[in-house]
Amino acid sequence: MEKVFMIYLIGMSGSGKTTIANALQEKLESCGRERIQVIDGDIIRKQFGDIFGNTYEERMKCNRAVRVVVNYLIDNQISVILAQVAAYKEMRRLVREQFAECYIEVYVKCSLSECARRDVKGYYKKFYQGEISNLNGANDVYEVPEDYDILIDTEKETVEESVQKIVSYLEENGYVL
Amino acid sequence: MEKVFMIYLIGMSGSGKTTIANALQEKLESCGRERIQVIDGDIIRKQFGDIFGNTYEERMKCNRAVRVVVNYLIDNQISVILAQVAAYKEMRRLVREQFAECYIEVYVKCSLSECARRDVKGYYKKFYQGEISNLNGANDVYEVPEDYDILIDTEKETVEESVQKIVSYLEENGYVL
Repeated sequence: MEKVFMIYLIGMSGSGKTTIANALQEKLESCGRERIQVIDGDIIRKQFGDIFGNTYEERMKCNRAVRVVVNYLIDNQISVILAQVAAYKEMRRLVREQFAECYIEVYVKCSLSECARRDVKGYYKKFYQGEISNLNGANDVYEVPEDYDILIDTEKETVEESVQKIVSYLEENGYVL
Repeated sequence: MEKVFMIYLIGMSGSGKTTIANALQEKLESCGRERIQVIDGDIIRKQFGDIFGNTYEERMKCNRAVRVVVNYLIDNQISVILAQVAAYKEMRRLVREQFAECYIEVYVKCSLSECARRDVKGYYKKFYQGEISNLNGANDVYEVPEDYDILIDTEKETVEESVQKIVSYLEENGYVL
């Protein structure tokens, strides 16, 4: 049986998490690796009904709810690629602890200025126009990851290079046969 | 490929939903049907961190969050047996609507007096002692299901008989090959 993984793609909004998550899933599926679920932190937040706010406590609650989903999937041998800002060290610690056996942390690094320039989801524009507050990395805290397993720099690497880094890690650690 | 199902076991606390859910999973697995996840409404509520209250609105929010979990499982070809009080017609309607293609509603019927006598989870004792309020079927509304696909009466049937009813339904409707 294939070894299940839980890839946690973390980084600021606009860093490129979703792009990499989808490209990674496509790449793995093209290699015959099935049963992979991509979960986008913004999408699942909406699926939950936008009931979670943007304070530390609310984000931690939201993260806990997301972990419930991930846990049921992992329990059923579905690998997960979770793309989430994950601004807090404690949040990452809890995810790592819960999925210790299959946890792979990928820090998707990108400067604030470049994230704001890309502004894929329009959050930075809304933030600078005062329509949203508490944007991690801008006015709100983003505790820079230190314990990641893989570092991706989307200002220096192509998507293909980043995806290949993760695939190589999976191969080296027995996740892809 | 096996046809995925979403069995919604609904009924008051103590009616026997969890017992039947587990017995049904065991029976189906013994017949070679794999990839079945039982979700207990009380357990998943705790897994979410007990963030949902017991008003109509809060129960609807909780139900929506549970549907997120079910949806990711169904999307990945994992069949679900969801055991939940589901006191409101509107709640059942939403679940039915979301999982229309694979939805099977099983009303686990049992009188209030018998549910309170069994009191498997101790809710009725706590309720009558004033430690909890809003117990569906006791002081809070329980809108009796009318649109169910299967009726189970746990005061008149054995667990084996109830499980067999569901298995027969699955067979007749092409879910078990």
